[in-house]
Amino acid sequence: MPTLVMKFGGTSVATLDRIRRAAKRVGVEVSKGYDVIVIVSAMSGETNKLVGYVNETSPLYDAREYDAIVSSGENVTAGLMALTLQEMDVPARSWQGWQVPVKTNDAHAAARIEEIPTDNINAKFGEGMKVAVVAGFQGIGPDGRITTLGRGGSDTTAVAFAAAFGAERCDIYTDVDGVYTTDPRITDKARKLDKISFEEMLELASLGAKVLQTRSVELAMRYKVKLRVLSSFEEQSDEAGTLVCPEEEVMENRPVSGVAYSRDEAKMTLVSVADRPGIAAAIFGPLSDAGVNVDMIIQNIAEEGRTDMTFSCPTDQVKRAEKALNDAKDAGEINYHGLVADTAVAKISAVGIGMRSQSGVAAKMFKTLSDEGINIKVIATSEIKISVLVDRKYMELAVQALHDAFELEKA
Amino acid sequence: MPTLVMKFGGTSVATLDRIRRAAKRVGVEVSKGYDVIVIVSAMSGETNKLVGYVNETSPLYDAREYDAIVSSGENVTAGLMALTLQEMDVPARSWQGWQVPVKTNDAHAAARIEEIPTDNINAKFGEGMKVAVVAGFQGIGPDGRITTLGRGGSDTTAVAFAAAFGAERCDIYTDVDGVYTTDPRITDKARKLDKISFEEMLELASLGAKVLQTRSVELAMRYKVKLRVLSSFEEQSDEAGTLVCPEEEVMENRPVSGVAYSRDEAKMTLVSVADRPGIAAAIFGPLSDAGVNVDMIIQNIAEEGRTDMTFSCPTDQVKRAEKALNDAKDAGEINYHGLVADTAVAKISAVGIGMRSQSGVAAKMFKTLSDEGINIKVIATSEIKISVLVDRKYMELAVQALHDAFELEKA
Repeated sequence: MPTLVMKFGGTSVATLDRIRRAAKRVGVEVSKGYDVIVIVSAMSGETNKLVGYVNETSPLYDAREYDAIVSSGENVTAGLMALTLQEMDVPARSWQGWQVPVKTNDAHAAARIEEIPTDNINAKFGEGMKVAVVAGFQGIGPDGRITTLGRGGSDTTAVAFAAAFGAERCDIYTDVDGVYTTDPRITDKARKLDKISFEEMLELASLGAKVLQTRSVELAMRYKVKLRVLSSFEEQSDEAGTLVCPEEEVMENRPVSGVAYSRDEAKMTLVSVADRPGIAAAIFGPLSDAGVNVDMIIQNIAEEGRTDMTFSCPTDQVKRAEKALNDAKDAGEINYHGLVADTAVAKISAVGIGMRSQSGVAAKMFKTLSDEGINIKVIATSEIKISVLVDRKYMELAVQALHDAFELEKA
Repeated sequence: MPTLVMKFGGTSVATLDRIRRAAKRVGVEVSKGYDVIVIVSAMSGETNKLVGYVNETSPLYDAREYDAIVSSGENVTAGLMALTLQEMDVPARSWQGWQVPVKTNDAHAAARIEEIPTDNINAKFGEGMKVAVVAGFQGIGPDGRITTLGRGGSDTTAVAFAAAFGAERCDIYTDVDGVYTTDPRITDKARKLDKISFEEMLELASLGAKVLQTRSVELAMRYKVKLRVLSSFEEQSDEAGTLVCPEEEVMENRPVSGVAYSRDEAKMTLVSVADRPGIAAAIFGPLSDAGVNVDMIIQNIAEEGRTDMTFSCPTDQVKRAEKALNDAKDAGEINYHGLVADTAVAKISAVGIGMRSQSGVAAKMFKTLSDEGINIKVIATSEIKISVLVDRKYMELAVQALHDAFELEKA
């Protein structure tokens, strides 16, 4: 039997009625002759509630306990989805991560999947089971304890299962009907893309587009998993949604495919750092050890042996970054006069594989922002992406202006 | 190190504040030098919510999925309790049932614990961990799937751990401060008992007193686990609550220790049964096969080869009992003229180990009820218990009158 992976996000399983609607979609694919692996998220709101409990109990929590706690929401949905399918006379059963087992490394709260043995589930398919419902977002570490894959990790679970089982396709059902040129809540000119390349999707995902977890796109790219994003709230054809696929299958050749933004980025500046060879390593080593995800980095020109070092990181890691840097200062590993965190910023990014072949994209982006009177605080670029930090109050304006400037509303 | 088991029920861990209060109690025992195993229930309301989801999704649910779903509440509390203890600098970690592993039989939704290996947890105690927090109510079956022990099963988890680890005592923290002579909501003369024998507690638990799960008391009696029931809402001394212990340790020698009641009992009468040798087996065999828990049984004197047979069973099993008896009648295995179910009854029981040595207890009970004008519908006795079925409207009056008659308010 050909295998299909279908993943349902939190809003798609938010109530028993929605679980029933999702189960019907699964039934349609089963009736086409597929063995289906369904990956489910927690009912929407559940994981946030549990994360809230953890943060209130222990701000610097033991990540192993965090994992044991926040993984429970997916277990509930998996069982309910299996029961719902059984009620529809579709032979189904649920698996929790450790039962498959979804083997991960020991990076609790941000674990990576290392292996998914297929024998348990395939044996049940061989016995006539049609749907394996698997709790997403979770696995088991080498220590035998539960791990989780980071927020949005169920997408990664889905792609990993599609790769392991050689699935024909991996359909990600969510509350939007595909990938857009930008967030439709920011501009009604936003347009759904029929196709987008893995590389572009990867940048958009890591830049704040909430459609897919970054890691899931990486994984799909590496294992050539045909990935589709579509809505669980609409009747679906086989061409619905947005297909995420290799670059050569995307026909359009635009300089920019999409504009992303993120409110969750903070700008941190180390004022008057004693400059010396190895200072960057001395600063960013401890940050890395503390699990801080540093994104953009700027070093000013040094004067009289001292310099300013600016970097960005997720807003909720600011406290951790401050602690790591203060500890390094106390240990005499680095020396600086001040540490300033600015959380009233936003990151705006333009993404497009067309940038590789077309020049002038950065210039056009900077001029557009300048024309709107928006000051750029930090710039970072990659082969197919230009990101800037701006004052958060200009975020919507910047996105709208760039969407217009690159004519993204046109197909 | 001596080991102590402490179990906290749903109301004792209903909020993060209450978990903190419970953790402080655990900290007190750790500071006395104990290695502590903490068994937790789900935060109150959680399990009911999950059971509600299951029943709405699939009224005749697959018990294996039920177990996977409803066990998740305990996992959350276990992690939160471990984090709370860590915040208080008490080295702690959580275990889910399958991680210990708590090995059970395969009777999903009503499983029995078969083995609790102690090596995993003891190894951690050896490394300096002071508290093992274990999710109650759950285990793992021979099929590798999650099992649960039935409602109130966390009490049984606690006693089973106390037995397996040879704990000095098993403290059950709950929302009442001990075992009472009767329900204080029925009479304010109800008095807390300092000690009660296993046998009496077993009768009271099975007769409707909601303090402890029956199985947990059976287990404590078999393995001689010193069991204490006490309140998580009061400051506690070592003598607080009620100690459930072997008969010989209970000094008081009362004929009656407590009066219990149950609203959940129905009276069923088979009218004009064809009497013959083996008729009782022909009636109660099918009921047993259908999972009906028959409690009291009365057979009238036969006249002209026919008799009436009356029995009691839990109210929610009436439909099942009717089906089983009708099926047996259709199959020609039994013959009767009518089947009458009366659910407007209540069971009142007087329990006391003193009954073994003191006569006249039953006579006093019947006279007391008679003096109040309460008609007795069915009587059942055991060595240390007398139970009667009466009209439900007399339930409170009967309890109050018996509590007075046996002078239970006096220490």
